[in-house]
Amino acid sequence: MIIVKIGGGAGINLQGIIEDLAQIQERFVIVHGANAVRDKLAEDLGQPKKVVTSVSGYSSVYSDETLIDQMMMAYAGVRNKRIVELCQQKGINAIGLSGLDGKAVQGVRNKGIRVYEGGKLKILRDYSGKPEAVNKSLLDLLLDHGYVPVLTVPIIDEQSTAINTENDDVVRVLQKTLRADTVVNLIEAPGFLEDKEDEGSLIRRIPAAELEAREQQVDGRMKRKMLAVRKLLEHGASRVVIADGRGEHPVRDALSGKGTVIE
Amino acid sequence: MIIVKIGGGAGINLQGIIEDLAQIQERFVIVHGANAVRDKLAEDLGQPKKVVTSVSGYSSVYSDETLIDQMMMAYAGVRNKRIVELCQQKGINAIGLSGLDGKAVQGVRNKGIRVYEGGKLKILRDYSGKPEAVNKSLLDLLLDHGYVPVLTVPIIDEQSTAINTENDDVVRVLQKTLRADTVVNLIEAPGFLEDKEDEGSLIRRIPAAELEAREQQVDGRMKRKMLAVRKLLEHGASRVVIADGRGEHPVRDALSGKGTVIE
Repeated sequence: MIIVKIGGGAGINLQGIIEDLAQIQERFVIVHGANAVRDKLAEDLGQPKKVVTSVSGYSSVYSDETLIDQMMMAYAGVRNKRIVELCQQKGINAIGLSGLDGKAVQGVRNKGIRVYEGGKLKILRDYSGKPEAVNKSLLDLLLDHGYVPVLTVPIIDEQSTAINTENDDVVRVLQKTLRADTVVNLIEAPGFLEDKEDEGSLIRRIPAAELEAREQQVDGRMKRKMLAVRKLLEHGASRVVIADGRGEHPVRDALSGKGTVIE
Repeated sequence: MIIVKIGGGAGINLQGIIEDLAQIQERFVIVHGANAVRDKLAEDLGQPKKVVTSVSGYSSVYSDETLIDQMMMAYAGVRNKRIVELCQQKGINAIGLSGLDGKAVQGVRNKGIRVYEGGKLKILRDYSGKPEAVNKSLLDLLLDHGYVPVLTVPIIDEQSTAINTENDDVVRVLQKTLRADTVVNLIEAPGFLEDKEDEGSLIRRIPAAELEAREQQVDGRMKRKMLAVRKLLEHGASRVVIADGRGEHPVRDALSGKGTVIE
């Protein structure tokens, strides 16, 4: 079993990715983002992201109802259905699912962000949370009958409300439940870079044992991504490949070891 | 088996409809529209519908790539996922599907519209067509495992391209394939009206045998709707109820005979 995570950047070569996947013999599940589509939609609608800063100085996107609507349009709507269409054209019998559909991805809603507002401490609650479980029987049912699940956010919380979450966390829960041995993460870079400004500084291989030390050297989004990889390996993945989603054959290249291979 | 078609108008009481459906013992499938959401989105994006007029004087919406993207956002995206969310909250284990997902609804693309452009005859081809088949084995698989399919456009054509179609036609193919005995069509009116300006002019009952004569008395969209009903009955539906989707209990009322009952 392979989990293929397709990044949501505008430069991702969807055509190439799906053509490669059509050649794969092993079972696979797709998880995808759509941030470029969503950002464009938000801009066109004049609904920019709201960012809030917690009392501890941590900034995060405020997922209100408008943002969830945008995610349903961008992620579960146009990006998901265009990927499903492309899959069908290449002979992959894909079925797009948000985490809401058949409770495919179930999460727990965040308790709220502690913020100062007008000098007063306040708890701001939004529609965001962490995935905790996937509906394995639904995914197995579809896979056993030849359908390929194409998963994306939003997911469903304990009150059956739509919530935003990180796709990396969805991949983690999915890997653990489906016991996928390989996770391919297709991004808009050649892989993990020593210097994020220099695409020539690709780290070709990171032994699993070195991952924690590597995590200390980086920060921000990259640190979170490395932590996500470490968790995948702890939960039984034997190989994680962070690879370029922009090339002619992104999946073929990733599976043949191009990119950053962590095992 | 009941097919419940939920109109896409802004006045439709989704909450009431889903609460009613949660009480139903019989199997059902949902088909829904989203025209209010789509029109609002198109307006907010500054992408109005393009209407073309054929050489024979017939006007129709031109379904270009932008329109299909909008449909994916409005129909398969936010409207579908909000309905699925509501279903899950009421205990219905819904799975949203566009016609693309698992080739749930397969159609044939229109050959093109003959138009005059700059005095010259031209064939304008768009992404629209007619549904011809549904993936019965997928719908049965889901229903047999306790999932309720929530279907919407776009559908998939013979080249696996996303195309626009009329939801009434989707309902027709679905009824024929699933052999549904009852079709409930929830709209923003009390049912078929003698005078479309007067909600008090509800036609309570139309015997199937009178339907063709009735069709001759009306025109435009209503004529198309009556033709659609006639085809449902010809293909084995025993009862079609056109009922108000705006009330407190739209489905309960419809099944108890409020609205226009055609049988």
